[in-house]
Amino acid sequence: MHIGMIGLGRMGANMARRLARGGAEVLAWSRSAGARRALAREPRVATVADLASMVEKLKTPRVLWLMLPAGKPTADTLARLAPLLAKGDVVVNGANAYYKDSMRQAAELAGHGLYLVDAGVSGGIWGLANGYAVMLGGDAKAVKRITPFVKLLAPPKGWLHCGPSGAGHYVKMIHNGIEYGLMQAYAEGFALLAGKREFSLDLAAVAELWRHGSVVRSWLLDLMADNLKRDAALEGIAPVVADSGEGRWTAIEAVELGVPAPVISLALAMRFASQGKGDYGARQLAQLRNSFGGHAVTGSGHPAPAGRVRGGRVARKKKQS
Amino acid sequence: MHIGMIGLGRMGANMARRLARGGAEVLAWSRSAGARRALAREPRVATVADLASMVEKLKTPRVLWLMLPAGKPTADTLARLAPLLAKGDVVVNGANAYYKDSMRQAAELAGHGLYLVDAGVSGGIWGLANGYAVMLGGDAKAVKRITPFVKLLAPPKGWLHCGPSGAGHYVKMIHNGIEYGLMQAYAEGFALLAGKREFSLDLAAVAELWRHGSVVRSWLLDLMADNLKRDAALEGIAPVVADSGEGRWTAIEAVELGVPAPVISLALAMRFASQGKGDYGARQLAQLRNSFGGHAVTGSGHPAPAGRVRGGRVARKKKQS
Repeated sequence: MHIGMIGLGRMGANMARRLARGGAEVLAWSRSAGARRALAREPRVATVADLASMVEKLKTPRVLWLMLPAGKPTADTLARLAPLLAKGDVVVNGANAYYKDSMRQAAELAGHGLYLVDAGVSGGIWGLANGYAVMLGGDAKAVKRITPFVKLLAPPKGWLHCGPSGAGHYVKMIHNGIEYGLMQAYAEGFALLAGKREFSLDLAAVAELWRHGSVVRSWLLDLMADNLKRDAALEGIAPVVADSGEGRWTAIEAVELGVPAPVISLALAMRFASQGKGDYGARQLAQLRNSFGGHAVTGSGHPAPAGRVRGGRVARKKKQS
Repeated sequence: MHIGMIGLGRMGANMARRLARGGAEVLAWSRSAGARRALAREPRVATVADLASMVEKLKTPRVLWLMLPAGKPTADTLARLAPLLAKGDVVVNGANAYYKDSMRQAAELAGHGLYLVDAGVSGGIWGLANGYAVMLGGDAKAVKRITPFVKLLAPPKGWLHCGPSGAGHYVKMIHNGIEYGLMQAYAEGFALLAGKREFSLDLAAVAELWRHGSVVRSWLLDLMADNLKRDAALEGIAPVVADSGEGRWTAIEAVELGVPAPVISLALAMRFASQGKGDYGARQLAQLRNSFGGHAVTGSGHPAPAGRVRGGRVARKKKQS
């Protein structure tokens, strides 16, 4: 039971801990020395200074588990690993990634006789204690090889070999798309509770009540109930919601399949709006109302985003000649 | 512990059973003799032939619990009850109802010295076994009077005196609005899983996996997982989703408060579309594409809804003169 864990962020570090606490021997590497140090005292976890040492210390057929940011960091690491590994080794990409990238990368690694299993992993910072839901895509033999590790990471019944290469990250992508919609629905509902001033509703008490016997009970509601008990006004939290790719990929998939997913797509658009990316459109609306009806326009303290809209026309990059 | 239960549909009948099994003596009435007979053998439940007998048999201050359809059936029954009851009696409206109706009705009953408590009740057909989440609005004294019954209906912690008259039905309305959004998000996600033919995903297995450790785990997902195990294709289910009022009221409230609730409102619009109410608009789009681009129009097997759109113009009722 030896495994290499590459990438020791919030997810990777806790997954290394959970694997080690379950009995696996974990070799861990992150480019951050601090992240490596944070794991140094964990029983059955040894950190290594670089990828080459990790590969050298693992017995074949090796299992390496990647938890790196999607895109270039993952692609670069796979490119560096490929020549170091031996035929039959299995690399698992357990980070969020676009399933089409994973399919392409799996085909590339297959050219070297290597397996890439795409693993969607859900559970957030609670996964260390509760286990992570794990969604796997890839070759059956490779999935069999990593199953003992998956069983340590997941709660009982909390993992599935979903299908061929790409299927794990596809299922995880849709999982996150659903999450966007669920979160937005709760957020809107609580905004409507908060907005009804005349009833002076105790939002924390409502959330707690709904946890018991209501149709909307869920793990997300459990988290909201906890948050509301600590701080129902949320005035210290900026109304800006990041998006990390999975929602965008889900919306693109809906377009590519021609399957309507309006609520998920709109939940994504609401996040864009929260990031201020609807502001230019809103300025246009305010200006237009002024143009046709003479309605007042509020002067803004927020300057228009520099370099993006300029001189009365949308700035375009000049072609280098 | 005597209570009168008025309205013995799916919700009312099971609530009568749960109250009786908890130790209350229940007098039950429905205008349907069949619904009354269905409860006849339940220990501690006695059925009565009419409202007057129920009122006569209950000791003051009485507690009567209404579980009738929103609108006229509830309003008519309240109007019939008011002259029969005595000062201090408490009527609970536990059915779904528009909170503004409940506020008006409570004010009317208060004119007779009677209390109306609005109670939002959630839990569906599973409430008999699991308990119902109960959200109460109204006078504190009246809520105190009915609390022993509420405790029998609800699971521990599953009830709340939310605020003044209307607050119970308001909180239940928002609960159901959230439910519209949650359901739509799951439905879209599973449609995207089903639509990805190349992965041949086992939707029942995915739903089951997500129940264990994933961020989207919830009671609604538990139900979907059960449904998918029995029938993942759902071909025997018409793609038509009813809406029973609460979603509409939530969307109206969002407009009245000026609080954006786009996902909940859109989930409602998707139900309208599923009911065929977007068909006229879709016909218009097909026709317009034909007009400007000569794109083919598919002849429809579905006739335009009779009496609503006629002779090339929207039919309007002629004023009676």
